[in-house]
Amino acid sequence: MGQQPITFLRQVMALCTYPNLLDSPSFPEDAKKRARRILQACGGNSLGSYSASQGVNCIREDVAAYITRRDGGVPADPDNIYLTTGASDGISTILKILVSGGGKSRTGVLIPIPQYPLYSAVISELGAVQVNYYLDEENCWALDVNELRRAVREAKGHCDPKVLCIINPGNPTGQVQSRKCIEDVIHFAWEEKLFLLADEVYQDNVYSPDCSFHSFKKVLYEMGPEYSSNVELASFHSTSKGYMGECGYRGGYMEVINLHPEIKGQLVKLLSVRLCPPVSGQAAMDIVVNPPVPGEESFEQFSREKEFVLGNLAKKAKLTEDLFNQVPGIHCNPLQGAMYAFPRIFIPTKAVEAAQAHKMAPDMFYCMKLLEETGICVVPGSGFGQREGTYHFRMTILPPVDKLKTVLQKVKDFHMKFLEKHA
Amino acid sequence: MGQQPITFLRQVMALCTYPNLLDSPSFPEDAKKRARRILQACGGNSLGSYSASQGVNCIREDVAAYITRRDGGVPADPDNIYLTTGASDGISTILKILVSGGGKSRTGVLIPIPQYPLYSAVISELGAVQVNYYLDEENCWALDVNELRRAVREAKGHCDPKVLCIINPGNPTGQVQSRKCIEDVIHFAWEEKLFLLADEVYQDNVYSPDCSFHSFKKVLYEMGPEYSSNVELASFHSTSKGYMGECGYRGGYMEVINLHPEIKGQLVKLLSVRLCPPVSGQAAMDIVVNPPVPGEESFEQFSREKEFVLGNLAKKAKLTEDLFNQVPGIHCNPLQGAMYAFPRIFIPTKAVEAAQAHKMAPDMFYCMKLLEETGICVVPGSGFGQREGTYHFRMTILPPVDKLKTVLQKVKDFHMKFLEKHA
Repeated sequence: MGQQPITFLRQVMALCTYPNLLDSPSFPEDAKKRARRILQACGGNSLGSYSASQGVNCIREDVAAYITRRDGGVPADPDNIYLTTGASDGISTILKILVSGGGKSRTGVLIPIPQYPLYSAVISELGAVQVNYYLDEENCWALDVNELRRAVREAKGHCDPKVLCIINPGNPTGQVQSRKCIEDVIHFAWEEKLFLLADEVYQDNVYSPDCSFHSFKKVLYEMGPEYSSNVELASFHSTSKGYMGECGYRGGYMEVINLHPEIKGQLVKLLSVRLCPPVSGQAAMDIVVNPPVPGEESFEQFSREKEFVLGNLAKKAKLTEDLFNQVPGIHCNPLQGAMYAFPRIFIPTKAVEAAQAHKMAPDMFYCMKLLEETGICVVPGSGFGQREGTYHFRMTILPPVDKLKTVLQKVKDFHMKFLEKHA
Repeated sequence: MGQQPITFLRQVMALCTYPNLLDSPSFPEDAKKRARRILQACGGNSLGSYSASQGVNCIREDVAAYITRRDGGVPADPDNIYLTTGASDGISTILKILVSGGGKSRTGVLIPIPQYPLYSAVISELGAVQVNYYLDEENCWALDVNELRRAVREAKGHCDPKVLCIINPGNPTGQVQSRKCIEDVIHFAWEEKLFLLADEVYQDNVYSPDCSFHSFKKVLYEMGPEYSSNVELASFHSTSKGYMGECGYRGGYMEVINLHPEIKGQLVKLLSVRLCPPVSGQAAMDIVVNPPVPGEESFEQFSREKEFVLGNLAKKAKLTEDLFNQVPGIHCNPLQGAMYAFPRIFIPTKAVEAAQAHKMAPDMFYCMKLLEETGICVVPGSGFGQREGTYHFRMTILPPVDKLKTVLQKVKDFHMKFLEKHA
């Protein structure tokens, strides 16, 4: 999509990979300092050695320090940090531990609809029960606790709801949850004794000037000891999103709070079977949580590159919302965060019938036609889940501004023709 | 353990990580050529992009070409190659697919005893049945098909044996299977319709001049079409062993033969949930299967480094066997391959009683005493499985020759004192 890697991150990674470069005058001193620190914490001073299954110690310490800074001083314990192979690995591992209780009834896992399909896939793999709660499209995809309450009440008939998954900022829906909403969710989890699973991989991707990212961890602690020492929480972050976009390194971490010591023992055992997350991904995670600071040689370039990526994403979020909302039959909520638009599309009855004739979901039919006629690939809403009778697609806003404008114009033209054809 | 990384591998990795270095005169041209080729095959020419879930195309092609060379021309299809997060990930994924059939009786998975504990852990995670077959310690840990037959016969009473796991060269036992033995195993798998799972991660680690590595794939094809088009086989390799020892990158691949197309579809779906293996690990795997060739600038240094590591391992294998066999009460089979000694140790009755008093397995008691008295950490045989009443430990032969000599001398002294103390 044309987004360039952050120079500092790649410099540190290259130095760690081939330490001969530590003598090269073409690398800045702050990058060398980071690389030396990471290597000193690795077995044999090498990215090629296994690390502890929970991850390299000093990187877990850096993650804890990052969380403490991010959350305005709320403490984080390195012992609660687990480095992972991207966030997906952390999420599946925690779900595996939580689902394997083996009680009388099957474990219910609450997930938002629309959701990121990792959740439904892992729930199905584990033989757990997927319990849907619907985000409120009319209200900018907000999470309403009354809807959570309804979902839990109805689920209790056929499973034992134990886990509540939240994606904030939302994927595919792009909403950023308000502090009030997070408080309500935490209170609900406390009432219902639900394990909270907060997917916060888009925490650096907030564009709307009216929104801020609030971590579940921070809000939990600020709600007082009754909550902070009782509610179980796992939160996830990764190197794949934010301004760095280093998906290929599969770096990530999870912070797990109030986990029962016995379950913690099982978690460590489960992680040790796979030996360790990729050490190169762990190193990338370290640079994300421990970037150049004012006064360091690389600070200015780093800040410029970071602001360029995030500034452009904010522009593209606005542009996408505005352009979609000019098209009759498309409605797009504000893209407050993350990296996607998830517009609602009107599909005429004749097109729904044509889709049925092809044994396709109507939005799949729409997306296939879009692909065939324009070469643009978007993902139908039915892949994420949506209210019966509504149709959507997910489109990333990552392409460069000019390209994105062209894409949006093409989608608009296609949509108008599609409406006309199936009128 | 003091083993140095292979320079060429790290050079290519550094170039891929930070492509600005492609202009640096301090990197050899052949390393740059490899890096350019890998980057061209990556999304956005970057290790930071997601790859296809099955892995980067050109790397899968290089793996297929490597297998074809290794197996003297037996063809390998890139479409059957799946890049993985180390071999462990491949093994757990394949087992997950094979176990999830959901028939009337539980799936039985045959594993060698002693085994590498990944197998027992994954089998237990999946709720499958572990079916033990014992390697023949009196016969240099050989695999005897009669023992396989016994294991399957007895297992049929309480499960449905469907998978046969083989570790060759053996971990922890270090044997290298003869061609004849592999043929017998394949014939048995064909008879019993067992899926063969060949863990061949130590394929480059063969030291005994009387042994060669024969891949299951090659032998399968040489046995003729009745076998090669019917027997289902998955074989595994990784960047973690051999002469490269790049465990931290979590690179690996599996080749899967004769998989039912429907199961293949499920496999691809399952892999896609985790997005992709780390692209840096995929790149490392590429260099392992596509090393410098004669005529290339780096060939000489690469060959020297490779021979140094493998030559030393061969020396250390012989040294370890010889020294252990000089100790009364220790018997060690020849270390034909892999990286471990798995000597049998005599534990006197009084020590067995002392262990029972501490609620410890006798070999665990022995290993704890060794650790406390010498600082040397070895793994008790009970962690791998062993015939009732026999005791072993696993020790790696990776330390440098001088250090290894000291270690072996210390183990010897400890053992003599241990016998004396519990006489």
